[in-house]
Amino acid sequence: MEKAVTEKRPPAVVLLSGGLDSATCMAIAREQDFAIHALSFRYGQRHEYELDRAVALAKHFDAVSHRIVEINLSQFGGSALTDQSIVVPKADSVEQIGNEIPVTYVPARNTVFLSLALAFAETIGSVDLFIGVNSLDYSGYPDCRPEYIAAFQTMANLATQSGTSGRKLTIHTPLINLTKGEIIQTGLRLGVDYSMTLSCYDPGPGGKPCGHCDACLLRQKGFNENHLQDPAG
Amino acid sequence: MEKAVTEKRPPAVVLLSGGLDSATCMAIAREQDFAIHALSFRYGQRHEYELDRAVALAKHFDAVSHRIVEINLSQFGGSALTDQSIVVPKADSVEQIGNEIPVTYVPARNTVFLSLALAFAETIGSVDLFIGVNSLDYSGYPDCRPEYIAAFQTMANLATQSGTSGRKLTIHTPLINLTKGEIIQTGLRLGVDYSMTLSCYDPGPGGKPCGHCDACLLRQKGFNENHLQDPAG
Repeated sequence: MEKAVTEKRPPAVVLLSGGLDSATCMAIAREQDFAIHALSFRYGQRHEYELDRAVALAKHFDAVSHRIVEINLSQFGGSALTDQSIVVPKADSVEQIGNEIPVTYVPARNTVFLSLALAFAETIGSVDLFIGVNSLDYSGYPDCRPEYIAAFQTMANLATQSGTSGRKLTIHTPLINLTKGEIIQTGLRLGVDYSMTLSCYDPGPGGKPCGHCDACLLRQKGFNENHLQDPAG
Repeated sequence: MEKAVTEKRPPAVVLLSGGLDSATCMAIAREQDFAIHALSFRYGQRHEYELDRAVALAKHFDAVSHRIVEINLSQFGGSALTDQSIVVPKADSVEQIGNEIPVTYVPARNTVFLSLALAFAETIGSVDLFIGVNSLDYSGYPDCRPEYIAAFQTMANLATQSGTSGRKLTIHTPLINLTKGEIIQTGLRLGVDYSMTLSCYDPGPGGKPCGHCDACLLRQKGFNENHLQDPAG
């Protein structure tokens, strides 16, 4: 926090998972000239490779600070992403992804993450939160939709000292209406090195993507739309 | 969770701090014939005496389950309740409590707690959350007001699988419009033993109330209104 004295840019809290979307979201926050305070979570996820990527990405994008908060959502269970005994669904193409909320949905995950981001934002005097949710090429999670984000923002402005003192708090979701292809285009323009990101729900040793979970299939679709090879292999 | 098989009452998640309000709130949930799943937090609070009280209260009220979730809000700082270097304000009467949000406000605390309660509720199939917030005899925290709770409920119904599948989620706040005196009256009618509760923000050794923080003064006011002696001394 030593940089705060000379820091003139407004502070923004950026949720950073280490995946393609949050990396792009952070690049956008930086382009908009915010001082980035990255926030990641050790929440009992299946693998921690993504946290290593988050650390490297925060450094790459000159984040003013990066915190990894411990909150064990696996103690509640109920998701393939936090319960090793539930199998992550696999398919061969995005067309095979169902319309129902899948077992990889973690109950209230974005609400928990945004709430903790809100707590952190208030302590550093920030009224700008960035989250890389997307409601087009996504797994169908309810907490990725625009109406959910709008409701969270309304609640957040009633919840906090900053919100109630007239400084309006904004949940920025720059990716929410982009296709995966458009997200990648945006990121490439802003210098995101996608070889540093990891999207897979269920990677093998060393963080090797499985290639068949929803996240891998959607990522592949994005690179295909741009006629590009995924640099992460 | 073994009781679940024969349990016919609907499950409710009850936030339980170990204080006077949450104990009364739990008694109300039990009277309304919910199966109680109590939830407490080790969040970096100044003292853990209240958690011992929470454990005893959950047992006393036959909670089906009681979880204590670890979430270190003190790493963000910014509150006298999580930062030992900030002094808890003391006074001699409730009239001396200011109108501004005090330093005991923990940024976004109720939002973080309710979010985790929401995650837990979804994994046990509950759509009923109880929280003992009060907006009359309180410290002026923004996240205790009815408009905040209403906004959280709207958000929660958009955030979750249960909310979006047509099972409406309710945040129950049975104490929100009661005076401290009325809360105590209600609790006594429902068999709450207030000697088991601890309200003080800054207790001494053994959990002895300081008698001068906002929480102690408001509690004293409640017993005074009922012409009763506080059984906790």
